[in-house]
Amino acid sequence: MPTQFDPPSGTRDFLAREFGTRERAFAQIRSVFAGYGFEPLGTPAFERLDVLMGKYGDEGEKLIFKILRRGEHESSGEADLALRYDLTVPLARVAAAYGSQLPVPYKRYAMGPVWRADRPGHGRYREFTQCDLDTLGSASPMADAEVICAVNDVFAGLGIGGFRFLLNSRRVLAGLLEAFEVPAGLGAGVLTTLDKLDKISPDEVSKELADRGMPGAEAADLVAVMTAADAEQRIRDALKTSEEGSAGLHEVDTVLSLLAGQVPAGRVQFTPRMVRGLSYYTGPIWEVTADGAAGSIASGGRYDHLIATLGGPDVPATGGSLGVERTLLLLPPGGEQDSRLDVAVTVMAEQYAPRSFAFAAAARAAGLRASVYLGASGKLGRQLKWASDSGARWAVIYGAAEEETGAVTVRDMVSGEQVRVPSSGLARYLAEQASQPGGPS
Amino acid sequence: MPTQFDPPSGTRDFLAREFGTRERAFAQIRSVFAGYGFEPLGTPAFERLDVLMGKYGDEGEKLIFKILRRGEHESSGEADLALRYDLTVPLARVAAAYGSQLPVPYKRYAMGPVWRADRPGHGRYREFTQCDLDTLGSASPMADAEVICAVNDVFAGLGIGGFRFLLNSRRVLAGLLEAFEVPAGLGAGVLTTLDKLDKISPDEVSKELADRGMPGAEAADLVAVMTAADAEQRIRDALKTSEEGSAGLHEVDTVLSLLAGQVPAGRVQFTPRMVRGLSYYTGPIWEVTADGAAGSIASGGRYDHLIATLGGPDVPATGGSLGVERTLLLLPPGGEQDSRLDVAVTVMAEQYAPRSFAFAAAARAAGLRASVYLGASGKLGRQLKWASDSGARWAVIYGAAEEETGAVTVRDMVSGEQVRVPSSGLARYLAEQASQPGGPS
Repeated sequence: MPTQFDPPSGTRDFLAREFGTRERAFAQIRSVFAGYGFEPLGTPAFERLDVLMGKYGDEGEKLIFKILRRGEHESSGEADLALRYDLTVPLARVAAAYGSQLPVPYKRYAMGPVWRADRPGHGRYREFTQCDLDTLGSASPMADAEVICAVNDVFAGLGIGGFRFLLNSRRVLAGLLEAFEVPAGLGAGVLTTLDKLDKISPDEVSKELADRGMPGAEAADLVAVMTAADAEQRIRDALKTSEEGSAGLHEVDTVLSLLAGQVPAGRVQFTPRMVRGLSYYTGPIWEVTADGAAGSIASGGRYDHLIATLGGPDVPATGGSLGVERTLLLLPPGGEQDSRLDVAVTVMAEQYAPRSFAFAAAARAAGLRASVYLGASGKLGRQLKWASDSGARWAVIYGAAEEETGAVTVRDMVSGEQVRVPSSGLARYLAEQASQPGGPS
Repeated sequence: MPTQFDPPSGTRDFLAREFGTRERAFAQIRSVFAGYGFEPLGTPAFERLDVLMGKYGDEGEKLIFKILRRGEHESSGEADLALRYDLTVPLARVAAAYGSQLPVPYKRYAMGPVWRADRPGHGRYREFTQCDLDTLGSASPMADAEVICAVNDVFAGLGIGGFRFLLNSRRVLAGLLEAFEVPAGLGAGVLTTLDKLDKISPDEVSKELADRGMPGAEAADLVAVMTAADAEQRIRDALKTSEEGSAGLHEVDTVLSLLAGQVPAGRVQFTPRMVRGLSYYTGPIWEVTADGAAGSIASGGRYDHLIATLGGPDVPATGGSLGVERTLLLLPPGGEQDSRLDVAVTVMAEQYAPRSFAFAAAARAAGLRASVYLGASGKLGRQLKWASDSGARWAVIYGAAEEETGAVTVRDMVSGEQVRVPSSGLARYLAEQASQPGGPS
């Protein structure tokens, strides 16, 4: 295509087929969330600039699309609005704005586009769909477990293969640092290095820990425990020496016990080395990996003070975010045909147009998608070609012969068989045909 | 609410209830359009600035939200992107970009937000939903009639009261000018004045026509014909003296005959004085008014060369746009309750949490919305208050007494009646209850 007609860099047009695939997935997601009592929230595409600034760090801030002031202020070159960068800051604003009108706890989901001026690349867009579910106002691990359970149901419902949850708690991590006597100032760096245990060798991790200033013996000890064959048991034992670690362990075990009956055994794994990049988590954290996916396809956790930091009330909160674009890449092939119509109605001559129009309406009344031929050709072959291109299951033909007998011809576009049906009985005939196996669903 | 937490001027947050009302209306609209074989199209929220500029006139252009360049270019104060102002220019870009991949005719609908920096006011927003359906590539009046028919089905399906279509054709208007020998240069002004016949008196219209330079006698003559008791017949007679007028009349009559069986008699009125503001229409034009609505709630027409003007291919085209925000104001009260849950499951003590969690899952398996209590209180009264606030139809109670008997208590939140059900039979019991009259739909 001529590049001047491309959508802007990093954005996409969604023609019918892809639009349909996405919408079906979105409907499935919404339905699961609603099943858990999460309610929808819609917020504007843009926020006031000051609502967004200072929330995403220097690197994030550079990626914000800013909107120029208008009218006499346009020439100032200044911005006063910006496209939303995520769905969390708008949630904090809503929590602040409508506090007392919202139910307690406030369980909401949001799904819609966000915009980031990132360098576009494979699977990375400047306009992409985010999907978040969050519970504000509950400190209970049941709220954490509920989010995980809902995310599990979404992926199971979408037919995603081989997905699993890694579960940890920020308090487990704090307990580990305490148990292994990591100096307070080194904590964050040590955790970042530990998180590499699935990518680099234990020796390299030990060395990196030592480089960060952790005494060599303690570093080797920590890595040995984390990579032992019976790592989980040894970590559990170590955590029990720390109050924070014990609390974290209890949190993880509570979530695991809540999920036990709802999620297949083994799908949720306690993963003490998992850190998750964001610093604001305060309790259970989790992420979802899947066969064939690069990186996680969902993640979340408890973030008890973040909403206050973002300008909202200081409420306990937990939630998760689905990587919608990544997830869509994993959808099993739907086998859906490129069908726009169930019934294609020919128009053999201008004088028959009102009858053809009425036949299409009759087919719609029978619950089928139907339209008349809108082209200029009076040739049946040409019109049947259109019917076939439209993916129609039946063509309805009405011309001089049909007019004479008060009937209408219905052609099965798969078998090529044609039957004459009384004009007044068309809707019923099509409804019957459609209800048979092989008809449109 | 503190103003710093308001959404930006002219935009809205949609909390659950309003979000739900809107989504139900949108789903109804999409379903009707799909029934006619229109396919969905999604385009980005922003377009390259040059795609939008020069398309909306000076006044329109001022209302475009422009996006500042990023990175090193931010300080230039220049824009390179802009939020879409309507759904028509993106359609033209898509038609140009994907021409040969699109079906012929290309029947598409689009529904989504557009942005205009208008002064916000009652029912006028800076972010609002537009909904367009268009057929590209058909010159047939059947395409015009199909759009009108679909719009009729939408309003009928939404339960909009007393709506009616005003139908005219640009060629009828051209014929009128010809028949009444209006000098070529005065045509547009004369039509603008004639369009006021429903607002100001015939004498005032005659005077305004004369002021525009139309000879007084012809002006009086034209107004007399347009306002006569038998205006339609006299206009039809006048139009027959003009080739263009005759063609326009045939166009209107063809559309009327196609709609005759599909739209109740009298709902579509030939309205020769109706002009419609936009200059690009070339054939049939129409608008929809409704009881209680200020202005039209939908409008459209044929615009055979507009797509080429906008940068797309030169294809015949016809379409319509629903005034979604105005239409939503007319929706009959839905009577929907503020219900987030069908089943509210209490958690009487921590040790019962896994069972409660499983009961909620069982209720969801029965197709009901269900969640556990996420608060900190162990008091039944407090938890039942939450169940009631959530709009739940049933509360499920599980404590020491239930554990002893292997049963679970189901409380009907309307009648207050409670029954004990075997734990393993909860899903089936709830499914049965829900299928009875008065259960959740």
